[in-house]
Amino acid sequence: MRRISLVVVVVAVTGVAGVASYMESASGQSNGDAAPIYGVKLPKGYRDWRLISVKRLTGKLKQLRAELGNDLAIKAYREGTLPFPDGAIIAALHWDEDSSVSDNQALAAGFPGLGLESTFAGFAVNAQFMVKDSKKYAASGGWGFADFTKGKPGDEALHAKCFPCHAPAKDRDYVFTRYAPTPGTE
Amino acid sequence: MRRISLVVVVVAVTGVAGVASYMESASGQSNGDAAPIYGVKLPKGYRDWRLISVKRLTGKLKQLRAELGNDLAIKAYREGTLPFPDGAIIAALHWDEDSSVSDNQALAAGFPGLGLESTFAGFAVNAQFMVKDSKKYAASGGWGFADFTKGKPGDEALHAKCFPCHAPAKDRDYVFTRYAPTPGTE
Repeated sequence: MRRISLVVVVVAVTGVAGVASYMESASGQSNGDAAPIYGVKLPKGYRDWRLISVKRLTGKLKQLRAELGNDLAIKAYREGTLPFPDGAIIAALHWDEDSSVSDNQALAAGFPGLGLESTFAGFAVNAQFMVKDSKKYAASGGWGFADFTKGKPGDEALHAKCFPCHAPAKDRDYVFTRYAPTPGTE
Repeated sequence: MRRISLVVVVVAVTGVAGVASYMESASGQSNGDAAPIYGVKLPKGYRDWRLISVKRLTGKLKQLRAELGNDLAIKAYREGTLPFPDGAIIAALHWDEDSSVSDNQALAAGFPGLGLESTFAGFAVNAQFMVKDSKKYAASGGWGFADFTKGKPGDEALHAKCFPCHAPAKDRDYVFTRYAPTPGTE
């Protein structure tokens, strides 16, 4: 079950052509602990970073996602600074979308007639990172990209897709995700 | 448009019977800045708290949600401590689910054939809080509950529903949300 989830994710990120090379690396040809092309390593402590926004992906993937930022990224978002400063890192955490019968029973009992159901972050799929270094990554808009699953980076074919896919967001320094407002206050 | 969203939310949280009293408070009868019943005020700095998990609500509400915890709550979650210690606060941030045509065009171009579309946290709806104080809130499982919209607490009818609705999660100290694993590492 876990292997199936991983393969599906990689199909989504690399396209069908990337599956063969992924299967090779999954069979033992590790890329080491730095992502190919950009050399980004898994940032330490990213689970403690602050929240930028929440997303959901539908289609052949059903995922809930959280975008977190290190201090430099959060500061830039809040102040509207573009481009992001060197040192900013944005993390995208991806989970399979899961649900619970008992949670939904509690919702139905608490709020009858509204048809409410909930889903939540289930199996941890992968995490992706954008690391700003305007000199080192000048050829890719100043960003280094990385994808990790269980501490291991994805393969080169996968990483070769990152920057072209982010090109449509050039006017936002290649970052799709916008900073979410603060419920309860705003 | 914004007023409609607020009313829909309150219908969900209070049930139909709560709408009339909500409309009264929306027309100027403010409850002040402390939530009724429990006296909880809007916690400072909760937008900076660390992520517990991500959720989605469907039915008559379409929301993306983030659950954040203060340091005591995060520590208890990570160590599996139940009941939560006094001082722990859990925040639930609720947004309307939104989408972007240009985001979806970028997904379709980057990952053809997968039918991928994304949604993200849009309009900020409300935030809800659980504050642990085992003595002060002994009658409600040790938790004080609060709901805020744009800095103003919801009414008493709304808050009267909080604890009964959380009763099914008694074996998890009345907390429904579980701590999400860490994608990229786990």
